[in-house]
Amino acid sequence: MSLAPVRGCVVLRPYGYGLWERLVAELDARFKATGHENAYFPLLIPESLLVREQQHVEGFAPEVAWVTQGGGEPLAERLAIRPTSEVTIMTMYAKWVQSYRDLPLLINQWANVVRWEKRTRPFLRTLEFLWQEGHTAHASATEAAEEVQRMLGVYADVAENVAAVPVYAGEKSESERFAGALHTFSIEALMPDGRALQAGTSHEFGQNFARAYGIEFSAEDQTLQHAWTTSWGMSWRMLGGMMMVHGDDRGLRIPPKLAPVEVVIVPIHKGESGEVRAAARELQQRLAGAGFRVRLDEREQSPGWKFNEWEMRGVPVRIELGARDLAAGAVTVVRRDRAFKEEGQKTTVPLEDTPLRLRALLDEIQRSLFAQAKAFLESHTIAARDRETFVRLLRERAGMIEIPWCELAACEAAVKEATSATTRNVRRPARGPTCVACGEPAKAQAYFAQSY
Amino acid sequence: MSLAPVRGCVVLRPYGYGLWERLVAELDARFKATGHENAYFPLLIPESLLVREQQHVEGFAPEVAWVTQGGGEPLAERLAIRPTSEVTIMTMYAKWVQSYRDLPLLINQWANVVRWEKRTRPFLRTLEFLWQEGHTAHASATEAAEEVQRMLGVYADVAENVAAVPVYAGEKSESERFAGALHTFSIEALMPDGRALQAGTSHEFGQNFARAYGIEFSAEDQTLQHAWTTSWGMSWRMLGGMMMVHGDDRGLRIPPKLAPVEVVIVPIHKGESGEVRAAARELQQRLAGAGFRVRLDEREQSPGWKFNEWEMRGVPVRIELGARDLAAGAVTVVRRDRAFKEEGQKTTVPLEDTPLRLRALLDEIQRSLFAQAKAFLESHTIAARDRETFVRLLRERAGMIEIPWCELAACEAAVKEATSATTRNVRRPARGPTCVACGEPAKAQAYFAQSY
Repeated sequence: MSLAPVRGCVVLRPYGYGLWERLVAELDARFKATGHENAYFPLLIPESLLVREQQHVEGFAPEVAWVTQGGGEPLAERLAIRPTSEVTIMTMYAKWVQSYRDLPLLINQWANVVRWEKRTRPFLRTLEFLWQEGHTAHASATEAAEEVQRMLGVYADVAENVAAVPVYAGEKSESERFAGALHTFSIEALMPDGRALQAGTSHEFGQNFARAYGIEFSAEDQTLQHAWTTSWGMSWRMLGGMMMVHGDDRGLRIPPKLAPVEVVIVPIHKGESGEVRAAARELQQRLAGAGFRVRLDEREQSPGWKFNEWEMRGVPVRIELGARDLAAGAVTVVRRDRAFKEEGQKTTVPLEDTPLRLRALLDEIQRSLFAQAKAFLESHTIAARDRETFVRLLRERAGMIEIPWCELAACEAAVKEATSATTRNVRRPARGPTCVACGEPAKAQAYFAQSY
Repeated sequence: MSLAPVRGCVVLRPYGYGLWERLVAELDARFKATGHENAYFPLLIPESLLVREQQHVEGFAPEVAWVTQGGGEPLAERLAIRPTSEVTIMTMYAKWVQSYRDLPLLINQWANVVRWEKRTRPFLRTLEFLWQEGHTAHASATEAAEEVQRMLGVYADVAENVAAVPVYAGEKSESERFAGALHTFSIEALMPDGRALQAGTSHEFGQNFARAYGIEFSAEDQTLQHAWTTSWGMSWRMLGGMMMVHGDDRGLRIPPKLAPVEVVIVPIHKGESGEVRAAARELQQRLAGAGFRVRLDEREQSPGWKFNEWEMRGVPVRIELGARDLAAGAVTVVRRDRAFKEEGQKTTVPLEDTPLRLRALLDEIQRSLFAQAKAFLESHTIAARDRETFVRLLRERAGMIEIPWCELAACEAAVKEATSATTRNVRRPARGPTCVACGEPAKAQAYFAQSY
């Protein structure tokens, strides 16, 4: 990733884009397996269309980038670059839906969006970002609510089992809801600096958008009804979170399932060594044939330089192959999830067992990275019993601070004022009778934290 | 595809987007096989950056959509929505390239772009479109020239062997060159109405962009040199061309390699027929397991209604499965490339042979659609021997009209004035001594045509 020549934007270089391609593949397969199809809707939204859902426009208008000139002339109406696509997609759904037979509509879009934020931060908050946005319409509130939970589950699955980032899934508070939503759910991860990162959201809109944009259908009982809609999104921010969670002082550590390169082969020889080179190429072929994402590094730099580079890039496994290894019919396998010289970091594996051993090792690294992150999250999730401790832990950025909470906006605002921390999400029921922050009756169990 | 609520833009609905996903997969595999990697660069380009390459900005400025407001405030500098990304990518390459060891840089981007055209036409010319743009930098002119031809070859391969659309590959005339290019090459297809469609382009920039954006490298001989750059692009317009070329009076005909659904199974039964349904599901499982993109249509509508719908959508093969078929251990297979009731349109196939027969049939349909389009192109490619015939054929929109041509801009302008036709592309050498259009010495063999 590099800073771009336009403020607040980044360039995703091939290695970073390779991570995105892996995340896209994993999400896309799950969307399709749950009955969704992809489609594409325009980048630009006429202002008159954007303003129809009151809360939605109030939430997004301050962040809109406006196109006012095109083809050398001023435009009669300003066009917003989509900050999200509810507006356009709901307008189209209104045309596509007449009968309950047209429902559910289960569509996802892979797209870029622009949100004109004052403060940006590479990968975590950029003016333009790549994401997917799912938009669905249903014939009943129950079905819509199930969809929202299903996709929240997909996000938690991908975060934990692909990116190896443990998360808390729950509902956002009223003040943190998506503009126009009845309920917003999120997955929240914890970064090593003690800040929380929202990594995916799923929204229930009830019939709000259907009313604003006219999505009506004749139900099985012949009555005319407004559809129930949802949306859900995950962006490349998930990759930023993954890098922060797993990185160490030698650079990135990429979980195998996300790694564009799962294993790199570094041949070790002084001068020309046809034998070592040939063996390295043969091994590469064999591993590629067995379905591994493998790279053979034949560049002219020294082995040490290459080790360093691939460690920095977080490639899960490095295979070193030299004349001595070759003579012994073996390779040296180095795993990136263990520290330098830590026990088990390097092992010797018989050349012919490499594919089998590699598969097992990659699975183990996937689990080990998740376990490390999970241990961190658990040790930095702290139940506060009194207001003083609660405020102190939040100020110290101690992690996810859990309390029985009243769900009152005024309480949340007071905590934010005192600590700059916010609610991340809540689960029901509360595990105590009164709110630790303000003493009112508790309604839910909440995670508070500083956040990005 | 549907018209969008913003002028000149379209919505790609799931079936159309499925075609795009297939085209992307086929192109992307070829880009990777030729050593390219994907990356992502920003949507927005500061005006000061856009204006550095004189010819480039003159070509694109009239088509730019400008962002002038963001976050509720006027911007200090206008930002262009990318009409193409040379400017941003070359700016980044200038930072990434120091030595010949950093070359070649072989990067592709999948992206949306906006060109503010006065006249638009769904799929063929839309304000926003999806495409890929390859951008490469090389240490020598020869290597860059080879890259340009290699990617032109990839486009011709995908057009002919995936989209089943025969094309002429050749060089564009000076007046039709990409803004800032030394040489532009294209593939050109012929639509049923006799108009040509440019379906992919590949450009040699020499050192123009490297000079304008400062891409310098120290060569092996220690001298400081500017890199040689190229770019090449294909958009969803290729799909518009494919639909026009293959469509008939019953709707689309999709070549199997592009088809989101290769085969649809329509069970035929009155009322409940557990046996037929079960057999249809079993067949679907078997075909899906064998790697076919198969859909089982179990909707409540009549078989006739379904036949019509899937014919309109151009699914290459329909399998009908009824109680009588089942009793005979067979299915009825209907191919979309044959006319209604044409010999061979319907055949009966033993149920157990279906996967094997289907693979062969899909291959045959792929070839047959290409052969039909090729025959049309050949019968509508006409060598004109004199100016009068040449002008008449162009006015009649008779197809690709081929002549020995002088390559003079004035001649081309006069032909356009008289007929509204333009040169599509040229190949060397000329097959006659003098230009059929103007009588000057001929330099190349050119295709002229009306175009989209």
